[in-house]
Amino acid sequence: MKTGLIGNAVVGQSGGPTAAINATLAGVIRGVLEGCHGGAIRTLYGMRNGVEGLLEERLIDLNAYFDTEEKIKLLEHTPAAALGSCRKKLPDPEKDLAFYEKMIAIFKKYDIRYFFYIGGNDSMDTVAKLSAYTKAHDYEMIVMGVPKTIDNDLVGTDHTPGFGSAAKYIACTTQEIIRDCAVYRIPAVTIIEIMGRDAGWLTAASAIGRAVNGIEPDLVYLPERVFDLDRFFADVRTALAKHPNVVIAVSEGIRFANGRYVGEGTQTGAVDVFGHAYLAGTGKALEQAIKAEIGCKVRSVELNLPQRCAAHLASATDLCESVSIGRAAVKAAGEGVTRQMMTVARRAGDRYELEISHADVSEIANKIRFVDDAFINEAGNHVTDACCQYLLPLIQGEAEAFFENGLPKHIIL
Amino acid sequence: MKTGLIGNAVVGQSGGPTAAINATLAGVIRGVLEGCHGGAIRTLYGMRNGVEGLLEERLIDLNAYFDTEEKIKLLEHTPAAALGSCRKKLPDPEKDLAFYEKMIAIFKKYDIRYFFYIGGNDSMDTVAKLSAYTKAHDYEMIVMGVPKTIDNDLVGTDHTPGFGSAAKYIACTTQEIIRDCAVYRIPAVTIIEIMGRDAGWLTAASAIGRAVNGIEPDLVYLPERVFDLDRFFADVRTALAKHPNVVIAVSEGIRFANGRYVGEGTQTGAVDVFGHAYLAGTGKALEQAIKAEIGCKVRSVELNLPQRCAAHLASATDLCESVSIGRAAVKAAGEGVTRQMMTVARRAGDRYELEISHADVSEIANKIRFVDDAFINEAGNHVTDACCQYLLPLIQGEAEAFFENGLPKHIIL
Repeated sequence: MKTGLIGNAVVGQSGGPTAAINATLAGVIRGVLEGCHGGAIRTLYGMRNGVEGLLEERLIDLNAYFDTEEKIKLLEHTPAAALGSCRKKLPDPEKDLAFYEKMIAIFKKYDIRYFFYIGGNDSMDTVAKLSAYTKAHDYEMIVMGVPKTIDNDLVGTDHTPGFGSAAKYIACTTQEIIRDCAVYRIPAVTIIEIMGRDAGWLTAASAIGRAVNGIEPDLVYLPERVFDLDRFFADVRTALAKHPNVVIAVSEGIRFANGRYVGEGTQTGAVDVFGHAYLAGTGKALEQAIKAEIGCKVRSVELNLPQRCAAHLASATDLCESVSIGRAAVKAAGEGVTRQMMTVARRAGDRYELEISHADVSEIANKIRFVDDAFINEAGNHVTDACCQYLLPLIQGEAEAFFENGLPKHIIL
Repeated sequence: MKTGLIGNAVVGQSGGPTAAINATLAGVIRGVLEGCHGGAIRTLYGMRNGVEGLLEERLIDLNAYFDTEEKIKLLEHTPAAALGSCRKKLPDPEKDLAFYEKMIAIFKKYDIRYFFYIGGNDSMDTVAKLSAYTKAHDYEMIVMGVPKTIDNDLVGTDHTPGFGSAAKYIACTTQEIIRDCAVYRIPAVTIIEIMGRDAGWLTAASAIGRAVNGIEPDLVYLPERVFDLDRFFADVRTALAKHPNVVIAVSEGIRFANGRYVGEGTQTGAVDVFGHAYLAGTGKALEQAIKAEIGCKVRSVELNLPQRCAAHLASATDLCESVSIGRAAVKAAGEGVTRQMMTVARRAGDRYELEISHADVSEIANKIRFVDDAFINEAGNHVTDACCQYLLPLIQGEAEAFFENGLPKHIIL
């Protein structure tokens, strides 16, 4: 089925960068160049820094730019967001009509009839608002959301592009840290702080090793469960009684029963060497707590930005799926599908096989998919085998990173 | 030349782990199995947890254990220290004679005539003391130091095994972080805190990209130069005036003119969420300082343990050299060389070629090799081209990491 709507397309990236968001962009570019749209799309423009750049008409002709397979391949293996990103939340049309009128004027100027937006939760809000507005104001345009987020917290999809690579980095780095911690015999606790403010998917990934070689952190704490300090101390003591080198994975988003983040420092009196108030991170806070309560050697490691940009250790499965989803978005758009976010579902059966589909974006935007109850153990201090089995297929395969003279090669538009 | 001294050998690992110390161990094992000692060594024992394990006779027969090429290969690619490590500083023989007598008794019991110790500064102190004692007390034993340290701060050698892999990890991760930081257009400073309490070699490695693709941090601060806060603020402002995404690499060991570490938190009043005194790290301290003084978005990333254990991104050059140095130590020992640490020197000429040799360990122990003056720019806020050229050969080649089911495969003895 074709839409009959012929014109140009624009694609943007939005929200936090990942190691796979450029692979999704490459998928959209491939889809357009290969004609998956059935002839509906002429030129694919890239908007710089998402809708912010669109409003300033900072557009790049991607058909012209990506004239070689080598460039597209390189894009697939470049971390972050090659087009640049933004964190702009679209205004309410009733409050800022001028914003939308300007947008429509730009669409008309460039004859843009297809709009692809690659992003997470907030970006799907943009897709929902824009598609609602254009529909209500009779500007015929296909608006499609293409998911990406390392957080894996979008509803309506089995997982999100970008998550598998972050999960692989976290699982691999955790194993290396466990090896590192095993060299001494004195009792020591190492806390690994992992991203994920609301959902614990990334932290859960630290335990994937269980399903591979039996090596995993001793304890894993997710934001889906209330964090209790006394129970934590008891858990740590039990672990230390078993072996001297205890490794703990915690989500940055764990909270006490009163709703307060564990990593939320008291402003009162906390100063660093310059006399500035200091906010401790979750790992640091727990490091101090164990030092004071248990008194053993303790340190914390915040995995930080490399979790989302370590393209050199991307999951081949993740990159491959990201490209496929980008391409499928172009195909769906060409068939007239609009106001949808691309989704994936696992086919029934033992083998990991994906079905790419799409779902109403308004059902997805501004919602959070938490880690399933069945994936968290009863004590709330680790993940279950079912969780590891869910995660394992997503980290399979090592992406062929391109190194030149000892360093990874990235494309810069 | 042969020593005529025939017996068993023991090898240990000591000090902080690295991604290449097991490659050095593999080199010693290969050297023994291949007979590089000219028939002098019968059995090679591994001591668990360095001299600590030796004193408890926790020994492993490495000839018997490493009966396949596959196991040795896996050892070469496993991070940390497969034999375990310790941080024991040997006592003064005049103060603790019993310690040395016990040691000699164990050597006699196992007929140990060759002693290999793989480690950094402190480990070379062990080699120096042990060789002095055995010589003075007529226990005939060859004692050899085999260098390893990510810090690259041993004198008498062009560089140290383990440094190249840490440098490659730091250079690659810095490039990925720079990509990540480039996605937004708002002024933002990102501080990368890198290991190296005394010497700035690791921090200098963040800038290797200059010699490859021109991508490097805007500013680099090493412990070899006094850190001045006002000059720092001026540097940051100048960088922000050029482009919005400023990336700064700092060594954990930078200090003020009064000798105080930048990362040294004031104990007075600094408390976290649990009310515990808090010591900020260098990156965190500078993050707070910029926030207060310049007011832009700022964050810090501490590269932490992965710097020394990320075997998945090891430098092939480093691993290969580490094996060669281990093997060469066995050969030298077989020739009667003793009380020496293995060293490397670059041959003259444009091509990077190494000559493996050795030097008197008493000239090396307890000394620190700082970054050359010629490697630091005049302003003291970056490294020179000469520095990048020195570093570049050390990160060449990607080590073939062994992945199984999505995760790296490590050997556990």
